[in-house]
Amino acid sequence: MEDKQIAAEASVKYIRDGMIVGLGSGSTVNYMLRKLGERVQQGLQIKGIPTSVKTEKLAKELGIPLTDFSKIQQIDLAIDGADEVDSSLNLLKGGGGSLVREKIVDQAADELIIIADSSKVKSVLGNFPLPVEVVPFGYEKTMEYIAAFGCTPELREKDGRVFISDNGNYILDCKFDLIENPVTLHEQLKSLTGVVETGLFPEMASKVILAREGKVEILSK
Amino acid sequence: MEDKQIAAEASVKYIRDGMIVGLGSGSTVNYMLRKLGERVQQGLQIKGIPTSVKTEKLAKELGIPLTDFSKIQQIDLAIDGADEVDSSLNLLKGGGGSLVREKIVDQAADELIIIADSSKVKSVLGNFPLPVEVVPFGYEKTMEYIAAFGCTPELREKDGRVFISDNGNYILDCKFDLIENPVTLHEQLKSLTGVVETGLFPEMASKVILAREGKVEILSK
Repeated sequence: MEDKQIAAEASVKYIRDGMIVGLGSGSTVNYMLRKLGERVQQGLQIKGIPTSVKTEKLAKELGIPLTDFSKIQQIDLAIDGADEVDSSLNLLKGGGGSLVREKIVDQAADELIIIADSSKVKSVLGNFPLPVEVVPFGYEKTMEYIAAFGCTPELREKDGRVFISDNGNYILDCKFDLIENPVTLHEQLKSLTGVVETGLFPEMASKVILAREGKVEILSK
Repeated sequence: MEDKQIAAEASVKYIRDGMIVGLGSGSTVNYMLRKLGERVQQGLQIKGIPTSVKTEKLAKELGIPLTDFSKIQQIDLAIDGADEVDSSLNLLKGGGGSLVREKIVDQAADELIIIADSSKVKSVLGNFPLPVEVVPFGYEKTMEYIAAFGCTPELREKDGRVFISDNGNYILDCKFDLIENPVTLHEQLKSLTGVVETGLFPEMASKVILAREGKVEILSK
Protein backbone atom coordinates (compact mmCIF):
# COMPACT_ATOMS: atom_id res chain seq x y z
CA MET A 1 0.00 0.00 0.00
CA GLU A 2 1.32 3.45 -0.89
CA ASP A 3 2.23 5.76 2.00
CA LYS A 4 -0.39 8.29 0.99
CA GLN A 5 -3.07 5.64 1.13
CA ILE A 6 -1.90 4.59 4.61
CA ALA A 7 -2.07 8.18 5.88
CA ALA A 8 -5.46 8.69 4.21
CA GLU A 9 -7.01 5.60 5.73
CA ALA A 10 -5.61 6.45 9.17
CA SER A 11 -7.51 9.74 9.11
CA VAL A 12 -10.93 8.14 8.76
CA LYS A 13 -11.03 7.02 12.38
CA TYR A 14 -11.30 10.70 13.39
CA ILE A 15 -14.67 10.90 11.62
CA ARG A 16 -17.45 10.15 14.07
CA ASP A 17 -21.20 9.70 13.79
CA GLY A 18 -23.14 12.91 13.25
CA MET A 19 -20.22 14.96 11.98
CA ILE A 20 -20.25 17.48 9.14
CA VAL A 21 -16.98 16.75 7.34
CA GLY A 22 -15.08 18.95 4.90
CA LEU A 23 -13.81 16.74 2.08
CA GLY A 24 -10.54 17.96 0.58
CA SER A 25 -9.29 17.33 -2.94
CA GLY A 26 -6.50 15.43 -4.63
CA SER A 27 -5.12 11.93 -4.97
CA THR A 28 -4.45 11.40 -1.23
CA VAL A 29 -7.93 12.60 -0.33
CA ASN A 30 -9.38 10.20 -2.90
CA TYR A 31 -8.01 7.29 -0.81
CA MET A 32 -9.67 8.80 2.26
CA LEU A 33 -12.97 9.10 0.38
CA ARG A 34 -12.89 5.43 -0.63
CA LYS A 35 -12.35 4.35 2.99
CA LEU A 36 -15.01 6.80 4.19
CA GLY A 37 -17.38 5.41 1.55
CA GLU A 38 -16.88 1.93 3.04
CA ARG A 39 -17.60 3.23 6.55
CA VAL A 40 -20.78 4.92 5.31
CA GLN A 41 -21.90 1.65 3.72
CA GLN A 42 -21.30 0.06 7.14
CA GLY A 43 -23.64 2.59 8.78
CA LEU A 44 -21.53 5.68 9.66
CA GLN A 45 -23.83 8.73 9.63
CA ILE A 46 -22.06 11.85 8.38
CA LYS A 47 -22.50 14.59 5.80
CA GLY A 48 -19.67 15.84 3.65
CA ILE A 49 -18.91 19.23 2.10
CA PRO A 50 -16.76 18.75 -1.00
CA THR A 51 -14.01 21.22 -1.91
CA SER A 52 -14.03 20.56 -5.63
CA VAL A 53 -16.27 19.37 -8.41
CA LYS A 54 -14.05 16.26 -8.69
CA THR A 55 -14.41 15.39 -5.01
CA GLU A 56 -18.16 15.98 -5.21
CA LYS A 57 -18.41 13.55 -8.12
CA LEU A 58 -16.34 10.83 -6.44
CA ALA A 59 -18.17 11.22 -3.10
CA LYS A 60 -21.50 10.80 -4.87
CA GLU A 61 -20.27 7.67 -6.63
CA LEU A 62 -19.17 6.27 -3.26
CA GLY A 63 -22.56 6.99 -1.67
CA ILE A 64 -21.25 9.62 0.79
CA PRO A 65 -24.13 11.98 1.68
CA LEU A 66 -23.32 15.62 0.90
CA THR A 67 -24.50 18.97 2.17
CA ASP A 68 -23.57 22.61 1.55
CA PHE A 69 -23.10 25.93 3.33
CA SER A 70 -26.75 26.90 2.90
CA LYS A 71 -27.81 24.02 5.17
CA ILE A 72 -25.24 23.92 7.96
CA GLN A 73 -24.00 26.08 10.81
CA GLN A 74 -20.54 24.63 11.26
CA ILE A 75 -18.08 22.04 9.96
CA ASP A 76 -16.77 19.69 12.64
CA LEU A 77 -13.71 18.38 10.85
CA ALA A 78 -12.03 18.83 7.47
CA ILE A 79 -9.58 16.32 6.00
CA ASP A 80 -7.42 17.56 3.16
CA GLY A 81 -4.10 16.97 1.43
CA ALA A 82 -1.18 19.33 0.86
CA ASP A 83 1.69 19.78 -1.58
CA GLU A 84 4.10 20.84 1.17
CA VAL A 85 3.96 20.92 4.98
CA ASP A 86 6.56 22.55 7.25
CA SER A 87 7.34 21.73 10.88
CA SER A 88 5.00 24.51 12.11
CA LEU A 89 2.18 22.84 10.13
CA ASN A 90 2.06 25.67 7.60
CA LEU A 91 0.80 24.32 4.29
CA LEU A 92 1.40 24.97 0.64
CA LYS A 93 -1.60 23.75 -1.39
CA GLY A 94 -3.30 24.14 -4.73
CA GLY A 95 -1.37 21.84 -7.04
CA GLY A 96 -4.71 20.35 -8.01
CA GLY A 97 -6.26 23.78 -8.56
CA SER A 98 -8.89 23.67 -5.79
CA LEU A 99 -7.23 26.03 -3.32
CA VAL A 100 -10.09 28.51 -2.97
CA ARG A 101 -12.81 26.02 -2.07
CA GLU A 102 -10.34 24.06 0.04
CA LYS A 103 -9.43 27.16 2.02
CA ILE A 104 -13.07 28.19 2.49
CA VAL A 105 -13.97 24.73 3.85
CA ASP A 106 -10.75 24.08 5.78
CA GLN A 107 -10.93 27.47 7.49
CA ALA A 108 -14.59 27.03 8.42
CA ALA A 109 -13.86 23.68 10.07
CA ASP A 110 -13.38 23.35 13.84
CA GLU A 111 -10.45 21.06 13.12
CA LEU A 112 -8.31 20.52 10.01
CA ILE A 113 -6.42 17.26 9.56
CA ILE A 114 -3.88 17.08 6.74
CA ILE A 115 -2.98 13.71 5.21
CA ALA A 116 0.23 13.18 3.26
CA ASP A 117 3.16 10.91 2.61
CA SER A 118 6.45 11.96 4.17
CA SER A 119 7.82 13.39 0.91
CA LYS A 120 5.57 16.43 1.47
CA VAL A 121 7.34 17.49 4.68
CA LYS A 122 9.84 20.30 4.09
CA SER A 123 11.97 22.39 6.39
CA VAL A 124 10.95 25.51 4.42
CA LEU A 125 8.00 25.85 2.01
CA GLY A 126 8.45 27.05 -1.55
CA ASN A 127 10.21 24.43 -3.59
CA PHE A 128 6.80 23.51 -5.00
CA PRO A 129 5.56 26.48 -7.08
CA LEU A 130 2.96 28.41 -5.08
CA PRO A 131 -0.46 28.38 -6.78
CA VAL A 132 -2.24 31.75 -6.71
CA GLU A 133 -5.81 32.02 -8.02
CA VAL A 134 -6.45 35.25 -9.94
CA VAL A 135 -9.30 36.95 -11.78
CA PRO A 136 -8.83 36.29 -15.53
CA PHE A 137 -9.44 39.96 -16.44
CA GLY A 138 -6.11 41.80 -16.37
CA TYR A 139 -4.19 38.74 -15.16
CA GLU A 140 -1.16 40.01 -17.10
CA LYS A 141 -1.02 42.99 -14.73
CA THR A 142 -1.64 40.84 -11.64
CA MET A 143 1.25 38.63 -12.77
CA GLU A 144 3.56 41.68 -12.81
CA TYR A 145 2.54 42.65 -9.26
CA ILE A 146 3.17 39.09 -8.04
CA ALA A 147 6.52 38.80 -9.82
CA ALA A 148 7.67 41.87 -7.88
CA PHE A 149 7.70 39.67 -4.75
CA GLY A 150 10.58 37.69 -6.17
CA CYS A 151 9.04 34.79 -8.05
CA THR A 152 8.44 33.67 -11.60
CA PRO A 153 4.68 33.27 -12.11
CA GLU A 154 3.48 30.97 -14.87
CA LEU A 155 -0.08 30.82 -16.13
CA ARG A 156 -1.24 27.24 -15.53
CA GLU A 157 -2.30 25.31 -18.61
CA LYS A 158 -3.89 21.90 -18.99
CA ASP A 159 -4.14 19.93 -22.21
CA GLY A 160 -2.81 22.92 -24.17
CA ARG A 161 -5.41 25.35 -22.81
CA VAL A 162 -5.48 27.79 -19.94
CA PHE A 163 -6.57 25.94 -16.80
CA ILE A 164 -9.84 27.27 -15.37
CA SER A 165 -10.60 26.72 -11.66
CA ASP A 166 -13.98 25.57 -10.35
CA ASN A 167 -14.60 29.29 -9.65
CA GLY A 168 -13.92 30.33 -13.24
CA ASN A 169 -10.52 31.86 -12.46
CA TYR A 170 -6.91 31.37 -13.62
CA ILE A 171 -4.07 29.91 -11.55
CA LEU A 172 -0.56 31.33 -11.56
CA ASP A 173 2.13 28.89 -10.42
CA CYS A 174 4.74 31.02 -8.69
CA LYS A 175 8.21 29.57 -8.16
CA PHE A 176 9.76 31.18 -5.08
CA ASP A 177 12.40 28.55 -4.06
CA LEU A 178 12.21 29.55 -0.40
CA ILE A 179 9.24 31.04 1.40
CA GLU A 180 10.83 32.22 4.63
CA ASN A 181 7.70 33.80 6.06
CA PRO A 182 4.49 32.21 4.73
CA VAL A 183 2.18 34.40 6.85
CA THR A 184 3.61 37.65 5.49
CA LEU A 185 3.88 36.44 1.91
CA HIS A 186 0.27 35.25 1.95
CA GLU A 187 -0.94 38.60 3.31
CA GLN A 188 1.05 40.55 0.73
CA LEU A 189 -0.16 38.49 -2.22
CA LYS A 190 -3.78 38.29 -1.05
CA SER A 191 -3.87 42.09 -0.73
CA LEU A 192 -3.17 42.54 -4.46
CA THR A 193 -6.02 43.57 -6.71
CA GLY A 194 -6.86 40.63 -8.95
CA VAL A 195 -5.68 37.98 -6.47
CA VAL A 196 -8.55 35.81 -5.21
CA GLU A 197 -6.55 33.52 -2.92
CA THR A 198 -3.12 31.99 -2.41
CA GLY A 199 -2.12 28.39 -1.79
CA LEU A 200 -0.44 29.28 1.51
CA PHE A 201 -2.49 27.98 4.44
CA PRO A 202 -0.51 29.19 7.45
CA GLU A 203 -1.60 28.27 10.96
CA MET A 204 -4.71 26.36 9.88
CA ALA A 205 -3.91 22.67 10.34
CA SER A 206 -4.32 21.20 13.80
CA LYS A 207 -2.83 17.82 12.93
CA VAL A 208 -0.85 16.25 10.08
CA ILE A 209 -1.13 12.49 9.58
CA LEU A 210 1.96 11.32 7.72
CA ALA A 211 2.97 7.94 6.49
CA ARG A 212 6.67 7.15 6.11
CA GLU A 213 7.71 3.74 4.78
CA GLY A 214 4.44 2.20 5.85
CA LYS A 215 4.32 3.71 9.33
CA VAL A 216 1.95 6.44 10.50
CA GLU A 217 3.33 9.55 12.26
CA ILE A 218 1.25 12.37 13.67
CA LEU A 219 2.44 15.97 13.82
CA SER A 220 0.38 18.17 16.14
CA LYS A 221 0.44 21.82 17.08
CA MET B 1 -27.75 69.46 -18.66
CA GLU B 2 -27.41 67.26 -15.59
CA ASP B 3 -24.45 67.89 -13.30
CA LYS B 4 -23.06 64.42 -13.91
CA GLN B 5 -23.07 65.03 -17.65
CA ILE B 6 -21.25 68.34 -17.13
CA ALA B 7 -18.54 66.66 -15.01
CA ALA B 8 -18.27 63.80 -17.50
CA GLU B 9 -17.83 66.04 -20.52
CA ALA B 10 -15.26 68.20 -18.69
CA SER B 11 -13.06 65.13 -18.22
CA VAL B 12 -12.70 64.41 -21.91
CA LYS B 13 -10.28 67.29 -22.46
CA TYR B 14 -7.70 65.37 -20.41
CA ILE B 15 -7.67 62.64 -23.05
CA ARG B 16 -4.94 63.34 -25.60
CA ASP B 17 -3.83 61.77 -28.87
CA GLY B 18 -2.03 58.45 -28.50
CA MET B 19 -3.30 57.66 -25.02
CA ILE B 20 -4.41 54.28 -23.69
CA VAL B 21 -7.49 55.17 -21.64
CA GLY B 22 -9.21 53.13 -18.94
CA LEU B 23 -12.96 53.44 -19.44
CA GLY B 24 -14.92 53.22 -16.19
CA SER B 25 -18.52 52.08 -15.79
CA GLY B 26 -21.85 53.57 -14.83
CA SER B 27 -24.25 56.30 -15.86
CA THR B 28 -21.79 59.19 -15.41
CA VAL B 29 -19.12 57.37 -17.41
CA ASN B 30 -21.67 56.74 -20.17
CA TYR B 31 -21.87 60.53 -20.70
CA MET B 32 -18.07 60.63 -20.92
CA LEU B 33 -18.12 57.82 -23.48
CA ARG B 34 -20.61 59.65 -25.68
CA LYS B 35 -18.44 62.78 -25.68
CA LEU B 36 -15.30 60.70 -26.26
CA GLY B 37 -17.07 58.95 -29.16
CA GLU B 38 -17.66 62.38 -30.75
CA ARG B 39 -13.98 63.28 -30.33
CA VAL B 40 -12.93 60.00 -31.91
CA GLN B 41 -15.23 60.69 -34.86
CA GLN B 42 -13.44 64.06 -35.15
CA GLY B 43 -10.07 62.31 -35.37
CA LEU B 44 -8.81 61.79 -31.80
CA GLN B 45 -6.54 58.72 -31.77
CA ILE B 46 -6.85 56.70 -28.55
CA LYS B 47 -7.47 53.17 -27.44
CA GLY B 48 -9.77 52.33 -24.55
CA ILE B 49 -9.77 49.50 -21.99
CA PRO B 50 -13.32 48.92 -20.76
CA THR B 51 -14.04 48.00 -17.13
CA SER B 52 -17.30 46.19 -17.78
CA VAL B 53 -19.15 44.29 -20.44
CA LYS B 54 -21.68 47.17 -20.56
CA THR B 55 -18.98 49.79 -21.15
CA GLU B 56 -17.38 47.59 -23.80
CA LYS B 57 -20.68 47.32 -25.64
CA LEU B 58 -21.41 51.06 -25.53
CA ALA B 59 -17.83 51.97 -26.55
CA LYS B 60 -18.10 49.68 -29.56
CA GLU B 61 -21.41 51.23 -30.58
CA LEU B 62 -19.80 54.67 -30.34
CA GLY B 63 -16.83 53.64 -32.50
CA ILE B 64 -14.22 53.98 -29.73
CA PRO B 65 -11.27 51.66 -30.52
CA LEU B 66 -10.59 49.16 -27.75
CA THR B 67 -7.59 47.18 -26.60
CA ASP B 68 -6.82 44.83 -23.70
CA PHE B 69 -4.09 43.94 -21.23
CA SER B 70 -2.52 41.39 -23.58
CA LYS B 71 -1.59 44.17 -26.01
CA ILE B 72 -0.44 47.09 -23.85
CA GLN B 73 2.32 47.96 -21.42
CA GLN B 74 0.61 50.73 -19.48
CA ILE B 75 -2.58 52.77 -19.17
CA ASP B 76 -2.03 56.51 -19.37
CA LEU B 77 -5.28 57.67 -17.83
CA ALA B 78 -8.44 56.10 -16.43
CA ILE B 79 -11.73 57.98 -16.08
CA ASP B 80 -14.32 56.45 -13.80
CA GLY B 81 -17.30 57.30 -11.60
CA ALA B 82 -17.85 56.71 -7.88
CA ASP B 83 -20.73 56.25 -5.47
CA GLU B 84 -19.04 58.30 -2.77
CA VAL B 85 -15.91 60.49 -2.59
CA ASP B 86 -14.40 61.95 0.58
CA SER B 87 -12.20 65.03 0.93
CA SER B 88 -9.01 62.89 0.82
CA LEU B 89 -10.24 61.50 -2.54
CA ASN B 90 -10.91 58.07 -1.09
CA LEU B 91 -13.65 56.40 -3.10
CA LEU B 92 -16.51 54.03 -2.45
CA LYS B 93 -17.48 52.29 -5.69
CA GLY B 94 -19.28 49.25 -7.01
CA GLY B 95 -22.94 50.24 -6.99
CA GLY B 96 -23.04 49.12 -10.61
CA GLY B 97 -21.30 45.84 -9.81
CA SER B 98 -18.09 46.38 -11.80
CA LEU B 99 -15.71 47.06 -8.93
CA VAL B 100 -13.15 44.34 -9.68
CA ARG B 101 -12.48 45.28 -13.29
CA GLU B 102 -12.67 48.96 -12.38
CA LYS B 103 -10.05 48.53 -9.67
CA ILE B 104 -7.75 46.49 -11.92
CA VAL B 105 -7.88 49.16 -14.64
CA ASP B 106 -7.93 52.22 -12.35
CA GLN B 107 -4.96 50.94 -10.36
CA ALA B 108 -2.95 50.14 -13.47
CA ALA B 109 -3.43 53.67 -14.82
CA ASP B 110 -0.78 56.37 -14.41
CA GLU B 111 -3.57 58.77 -13.50
CA LEU B 112 -7.15 58.21 -12.31
CA ILE B 113 -9.75 60.94 -12.78
CA ILE B 114 -13.10 60.50 -11.05
CA ILE B 115 -16.19 62.22 -12.44
CA ALA B 116 -19.28 62.86 -10.33
CA ASP B 117 -22.00 65.27 -9.40
CA SER B 118 -21.61 67.02 -6.07
CA SER B 119 -24.11 64.73 -4.30
CA LYS B 120 -21.38 62.05 -4.24
CA VAL B 121 -19.07 64.11 -1.99
CA LYS B 122 -19.25 63.00 1.66
CA SER B 123 -17.32 63.98 4.76
CA VAL B 124 -17.09 60.29 5.70
CA LEU B 125 -17.66 57.29 3.42
CA GLY B 126 -20.14 54.56 4.29
CA ASN B 127 -23.68 55.85 3.98
CA PHE B 128 -23.83 54.05 0.64
CA PRO B 129 -23.63 50.28 1.33
CA LEU B 130 -20.13 49.03 0.54
CA PRO B 131 -20.13 46.48 -2.31
CA VAL B 132 -17.82 43.51 -1.69
CA GLU B 133 -17.31 40.94 -4.45
CA VAL B 134 -17.11 37.37 -3.13
CA VAL B 135 -16.67 33.85 -4.49
CA PRO B 136 -20.14 32.22 -4.73
CA PHE B 137 -18.95 28.99 -3.04
CA GLY B 138 -19.39 29.34 0.72
CA TYR B 139 -20.58 32.95 0.47
CA GLU B 140 -22.78 32.31 3.54
CA LYS B 141 -19.60 31.84 5.59
CA THR B 142 -17.86 34.83 3.98
CA MET B 143 -20.92 36.91 4.87
CA GLU B 144 -20.51 35.94 8.55
CA TYR B 145 -16.84 36.97 8.53
CA ILE B 146 -17.72 40.33 6.97
CA ALA B 147 -20.62 40.97 9.35
CA ALA B 148 -18.15 40.65 12.24
CA PHE B 149 -16.67 43.98 11.11
CA GLY B 150 -19.86 45.75 12.12
CA CYS B 151 -22.04 45.81 9.04
CA THR B 152 -25.14 44.14 7.68
CA PRO B 153 -24.22 42.39 4.42
CA GLU B 154 -26.98 41.70 1.92
CA LEU B 155 -26.61 39.42 -1.08
CA ARG B 156 -27.28 41.60 -4.13
CA GLU B 157 -30.18 40.54 -6.32
CA LYS B 158 -31.38 41.82 -9.66
CA ASP B 159 -34.76 41.08 -11.23
CA GLY B 160 -35.48 38.54 -8.50
CA ARG B 161 -32.27 36.57 -9.01
CA VAL B 162 -28.84 36.67 -7.43
CA PHE B 163 -26.73 39.29 -9.23
CA ILE B 164 -23.68 37.81 -10.95
CA SER B 165 -20.68 40.05 -11.68
CA ASP B 166 -18.80 40.07 -14.98
CA ASN B 167 -16.32 37.77 -13.19
CA GLY B 168 -18.99 35.23 -12.23
CA ASN B 169 -19.02 36.23 -8.55
CA TYR B 170 -21.60 37.49 -6.05
CA ILE B 171 -21.77 40.97 -4.55
CA LEU B 172 -22.55 41.62 -0.90
CA ASP B 173 -23.82 45.13 -0.15
CA CYS B 174 -22.53 45.96 3.32
CA LYS B 175 -24.16 48.79 5.25
CA PHE B 176 -21.60 50.30 7.62
CA ASP B 177 -23.03 53.83 8.19
CA LEU B 178 -19.60 55.30 8.86
CA ILE B 179 -16.30 54.06 7.50
CA GLU B 180 -13.84 55.96 9.67
CA ASN B 181 -10.72 54.36 8.20
CA PRO B 182 -11.21 53.16 4.62
CA VAL B 183 -7.61 51.94 4.23
CA THR B 184 -7.79 49.64 7.24
CA LEU B 185 -11.30 48.40 6.52
CA HIS B 186 -10.36 47.57 2.93
CA GLU B 187 -7.27 45.64 4.07
CA GLN B 188 -9.24 43.70 6.67
CA LEU B 189 -12.04 42.73 4.30
CA LYS B 190 -9.73 41.93 1.36
CA SER B 191 -7.72 39.58 3.59
CA LEU B 192 -10.77 37.36 4.21
CA THR B 193 -10.93 34.02 2.42
CA GLY B 194 -13.72 34.24 -0.16
CA VAL B 195 -13.43 38.01 -0.66
CA VAL B 196 -12.26 38.90 -4.18
CA GLU B 197 -12.27 42.68 -3.83
CA THR B 198 -13.94 45.55 -2.00
CA GLY B 199 -15.48 48.73 -3.34
CA LEU B 200 -13.13 50.89 -1.26
CA PHE B 201 -10.56 52.58 -3.49
CA PRO B 202 -8.39 54.50 -1.03
CA GLU B 203 -5.59 56.74 -2.24
CA MET B 204 -6.06 55.93 -5.92
CA ALA B 205 -7.70 59.00 -7.49
CA SER B 206 -5.42 61.85 -8.49
CA LYS B 207 -8.26 64.22 -9.39
CA VAL B 208 -12.03 64.44 -8.93
CA ILE B 209 -14.01 66.47 -11.44
CA LEU B 210 -17.26 67.53 -9.82
CA ALA B 211 -20.18 69.50 -11.12
CA ARG B 212 -22.32 71.46 -8.68
CA GLU B 213 -25.35 73.36 -9.98
CA GLY B 214 -23.88 73.53 -13.45
CA LYS B 215 -20.36 74.58 -12.41
CA VAL B 216 -17.25 72.41 -12.59
CA GLU B 217 -15.00 72.05 -9.52
CA ILE B 218 -11.77 70.11 -9.38
CA LEU B 219 -10.48 68.36 -6.26
CA SER B 220 -6.82 67.38 -6.44
CA LYS B 221 -4.42 65.59 -4.14
